[in-house]
Amino acid sequence: MSIRVAINGYGNLGRGVEQALLQAVDLEPVVVFTRRDPEQVETAGTPVAPLDQMSEWADKVDICINCGGSATDLETQTPAALEFFSVVDSFDTHAKIPEFFETVDQVARNRDRAAIISTGWDPGLFSLMRVLFEATLPNGHEETFWGRGVSQGHSDAIRRVPGVVDARQYTVPIEAAVESAISGDDRELTPRDKHLRECFVVAEEGADTEEIERQIKEMPNYFADYDTTVTFVSAEELAEQHSGLPHGGMVIRNGNTSEDNSETLQFQLRLDSNPEFTGSVLTAYARALYRLVEAGFRGAATALDIPVGALHPDSAADLRAHRL
Amino acid sequence: MSIRVAINGYGNLGRGVEQALLQAVDLEPVVVFTRRDPEQVETAGTPVAPLDQMSEWADKVDICINCGGSATDLETQTPAALEFFSVVDSFDTHAKIPEFFETVDQVARNRDRAAIISTGWDPGLFSLMRVLFEATLPNGHEETFWGRGVSQGHSDAIRRVPGVVDARQYTVPIEAAVESAISGDDRELTPRDKHLRECFVVAEEGADTEEIERQIKEMPNYFADYDTTVTFVSAEELAEQHSGLPHGGMVIRNGNTSEDNSETLQFQLRLDSNPEFTGSVLTAYARALYRLVEAGFRGAATALDIPVGALHPDSAADLRAHRL
Repeated sequence: MSIRVAINGYGNLGRGVEQALLQAVDLEPVVVFTRRDPEQVETAGTPVAPLDQMSEWADKVDICINCGGSATDLETQTPAALEFFSVVDSFDTHAKIPEFFETVDQVARNRDRAAIISTGWDPGLFSLMRVLFEATLPNGHEETFWGRGVSQGHSDAIRRVPGVVDARQYTVPIEAAVESAISGDDRELTPRDKHLRECFVVAEEGADTEEIERQIKEMPNYFADYDTTVTFVSAEELAEQHSGLPHGGMVIRNGNTSEDNSETLQFQLRLDSNPEFTGSVLTAYARALYRLVEAGFRGAATALDIPVGALHPDSAADLRAHRL
Repeated sequence: MSIRVAINGYGNLGRGVEQALLQAVDLEPVVVFTRRDPEQVETAGTPVAPLDQMSEWADKVDICINCGGSATDLETQTPAALEFFSVVDSFDTHAKIPEFFETVDQVARNRDRAAIISTGWDPGLFSLMRVLFEATLPNGHEETFWGRGVSQGHSDAIRRVPGVVDARQYTVPIEAAVESAISGDDRELTPRDKHLRECFVVAEEGADTEEIERQIKEMPNYFADYDTTVTFVSAEELAEQHSGLPHGGMVIRNGNTSEDNSETLQFQLRLDSNPEFTGSVLTAYARALYRLVEAGFRGAATALDIPVGALHPDSAADLRAHRL
């Protein structure tokens, strides 16, 4: 029997989770919860139910994957969904994770359920690598690079500049900085050394493009600390050339095991679709959570607490025989 | 209080483990066991005891790291050491792992102890990646590459050719095959496509070098299926240029999350010293094993069963706050 999974929220990530569930041999999507009118939500086949009818699905769902955003949704959605299901989410506001973990842990225990929070690829797989790399190469230095990929936050920031109709921002790792991290030359890398920001902007008819470019490049926090390029394009070109959501990145650690010998560990992702791969990671953690709950685990966990073998559909004995 | 670790065997790997233990904040090497005359074993400071006095250390050691070879030593050494300690080893004869696991599991349970077998980087970290990659990108294709690095087995095989005094063999991944694995062009890669074999050989005075080269290149299993280069060098050059034990490799998986979108996951190691890094990995698993035993675990486990967070000296709460 398949593990029955609910998808809570049906934006890009929710669609990615549905794709992943449809490919999995041992999980199936049984319902999509939405705040919108269910009639208006077109899925790849999964039934749609209004969010306020979640309680009716308590006996028909094993695991709920929350697909809202960290900024506003997950802080309330994950505790709310725990009333009825064990939950996987991708909460990614790093500074708030400890507090969020404690809240979720308490709610889950009170409801005799469990949750895996903050998974996906960063936090998630990149977190696993940071901890694995530091544990196996303690005397060293680590760098994380993101991209080449679309940053929604930076794209949104550009859209708030007067005269901008639409925009897409790519974060691009700088090759020389990647080489420096691999070789371990101990150079201190600044934000400007590590990433370039490429902006594709649709301006209003007759807008002052020089002023828009200046405002983008000088924007504190988002662009002022980086080398930034601004390219004005038509709405058509933005739609044709920049509609995808590619992303990726690297975790690189270089360190010494003795005075003479240095070692480099590297993990790299190249993603055509950030939401589809994130959805696939959440799906693997849903499988692990189901098994953890079956084995008696209650409360909150993160990717760091989950044995990697529990993510895979095969049994531990099969993995030992064929994958170790 | 530090976790007290015994090092069972003091070859290259044993020395690597000692280096790693000396760098760890929460573990210490308390004894080296040897089959040799302890007077003849010079460590970096750890006391040396004869292997047959292991029983006297039962109360003074928390975890024993077995540093023998899989071919002959570990199959008997790991069950034997379990009589007195919980044990970590690097058993790497893939075909025998299931049977070895069952034996170790039984012995460990009978002795109220635990063991983590078959760790290091392959099996070990590469196994983690194979399982993680397949779990998060099920619809795909995976390749493992080894090197550039010294293969002891292939170096030994060359030394058995008549007229050969000494030899060093490097396994070298072929760039075009790596690119093919990353891009996911679905080309079927043969052994010859994936790896090149570079041999540096010291011949006896007056030996028939053409015949030696022919015998190496045509050797079944080891070289016949590969493009192989043979370079004759002096004993001095071999000692000066080829005395290190560098290694490394890659696990690469490319797959599709939907018809339109493909994703690539890659893990890569570049190691100046294979035994020092392997020793460092075994050391991290010794920490995890100590914690598992404290938490009540008994029996055998592999890297696939261990939460990554357990490898790191920091607490789960600290890791959530700073590394997730």
